[in-house]
Amino acid sequence: MGEFDLIRHYFAQPATALHNDWAANDPPGQAAPQVVLGIGDDCALLLPTPGMQLAISSDMLVEGRHFFPDVDPATLGHKALAVNLSDLAACGARPMGFTLALALPTLDAAWLRGFSHGLMALAGEFRCPLVGGDTTRGPLNLCITVFGEVPPRQALLRSGARVNDDVYVSGYLGDARLALLARQGQLQWTVPTEVLAQARHRLECPTPRVALGLALRGIATAAADVSDGLAGDLGHLLRASRVGAALDAEAIIKTIASKAYIKSGEAEFDSEEWLALALDGGDDYELVFTAAPAHREAVLAAARHAATPVTRIGQIEPLPGLRVTHSGAPATHWHPRSFDHFA
Amino acid sequence: MGEFDLIRHYFAQPATALHNDWAANDPPGQAAPQVVLGIGDDCALLLPTPGMQLAISSDMLVEGRHFFPDVDPATLGHKALAVNLSDLAACGARPMGFTLALALPTLDAAWLRGFSHGLMALAGEFRCPLVGGDTTRGPLNLCITVFGEVPPRQALLRSGARVNDDVYVSGYLGDARLALLARQGQLQWTVPTEVLAQARHRLECPTPRVALGLALRGIATAAADVSDGLAGDLGHLLRASRVGAALDAEAIIKTIASKAYIKSGEAEFDSEEWLALALDGGDDYELVFTAAPAHREAVLAAARHAATPVTRIGQIEPLPGLRVTHSGAPATHWHPRSFDHFA
Repeated sequence: MGEFDLIRHYFAQPATALHNDWAANDPPGQAAPQVVLGIGDDCALLLPTPGMQLAISSDMLVEGRHFFPDVDPATLGHKALAVNLSDLAACGARPMGFTLALALPTLDAAWLRGFSHGLMALAGEFRCPLVGGDTTRGPLNLCITVFGEVPPRQALLRSGARVNDDVYVSGYLGDARLALLARQGQLQWTVPTEVLAQARHRLECPTPRVALGLALRGIATAAADVSDGLAGDLGHLLRASRVGAALDAEAIIKTIASKAYIKSGEAEFDSEEWLALALDGGDDYELVFTAAPAHREAVLAAARHAATPVTRIGQIEPLPGLRVTHSGAPATHWHPRSFDHFA
Repeated sequence: MGEFDLIRHYFAQPATALHNDWAANDPPGQAAPQVVLGIGDDCALLLPTPGMQLAISSDMLVEGRHFFPDVDPATLGHKALAVNLSDLAACGARPMGFTLALALPTLDAAWLRGFSHGLMALAGEFRCPLVGGDTTRGPLNLCITVFGEVPPRQALLRSGARVNDDVYVSGYLGDARLALLARQGQLQWTVPTEVLAQARHRLECPTPRVALGLALRGIATAAADVSDGLAGDLGHLLRASRVGAALDAEAIIKTIASKAYIKSGEAEFDSEEWLALALDGGDDYELVFTAAPAHREAVLAAARHAATPVTRIGQIEPLPGLRVTHSGAPATHWHPRSFDHFA
């Protein structure tokens, strides 16, 4: 099977069928952006909703850096799109579609079947059709570029945090790091098998917080997704907003869902170990965001609407940098160990 | 220098400055699409012109397959964007911006300086700003996704060719293949050094035919860009349009600009060799397109307007397939040897 047959066989999908499905099921005013022309021409053609802004994000995943060579191709397909949808979520943008460029060392039908299955299942779930792309032979590499829509001036940017805003994080932190440590044989603690399996699922199949991002339009002042670790990604947000933050250690540790199931021998974890799990772990794909204290009820309503838990973990301050306050103890400065591909 | 400094240092550009420049210099009604937010947030934000369709194309370039390991990084930067702009040209779309995802084995400042210089020079020439992307460590891999705008129903598709339409190709064919053969030590013929240098320049620094694509809106019935060889790419167009074509060998050979300077010993080339150069060579990045005979004057006017030569090379026929007619001789069926990355 050649390149062109490959594309057709594993990745072609009826964009118009998807569109008709949207049109039939979406509530009024929620019609999905129209895919005019999908895979197979020099360009894909989309019809953006007039007046809406176009949000774009692109992520490249490389074997050995972003995933293990033996990863299940279906979970890889899921994750490749999920990390891009997470960027749209952080912007409060509604997914429109994506392109996939794929370098493969060989044509492995079983691998492609699994990969496209995982990819297309998530694309269907988020109504974000594959509209085009490229395939070539080469060391395994996946590049997805995703497009979304957001009304003017409603995009959630990193630069909007204001002094006294609350700082929130969605969902649960640390699972991906836990799974990674286990995989690398560096897990010092006793973690039940089923908790590790759940953590591994969270590492390999993250859930992009698109619904929460949409619900936070007009409520959050700033947002970023947590891909390189909460401390690092919040750090980007703080620098973009020219502010700092004080976080509450107990609140952060509460976001570690696995905490109740982890035992470190006889003694309780040191709180610094818990904090490192939550603050320095990458691959969480949660949202970190800020909102004015007057909007606390609105934030909780948005979280309920999106069926996504959120935890208030701190407050924006004028002094740049990130400080973590332990109950009663003076603030300590947290130096993020954010992931840098070239460090 | 870390990942984030790297992006800022080599690839950040003042999108708003670019936009102001557009606004100041463009003729009325030609205002460039607005970049609301460029590099540095979770997503880039563009503001499409209301009612326009969004054209999207993505290409991945891999070392050893699309370029030689010792390629000048500036020409590589040029080519990586040029091949994407060529897809927009084939659609008749006006460039809006692009994302770049880059896997690099090491952080080589000289390489990055050259690459970004070549990339940004072409981006400036076509007013197509870099709006976002990703960098990671890995085997050298470049993935560019480009966005353009085209009015509804004016995009040039592969599927619009009609029986009796003329077939045209822009510019010059075969130079890239000539340079590739020379590089691979497979050149059987005597080619002057300066002609080879020019051919190599065409291979490494192709000129995307964006102006011609724009000028052909409403005139051409179908178009594709010639990236994998004229026969192969025209073949895609014919299949998409469910038609065939008869091409004139003499007209095709006329498109080989280097022809006058190539000597094959004592004897003249066999015309099959010339045809192979024009029909099977990849990397030409010309446009192949069709138009009704009634529009011959309009096609020539568009070519003059775009300052791009075009050659009429044949005619669309109902019978599927591609036939090449030698003057007087019966038609022969041409079997394209189009490039397939997995063949």
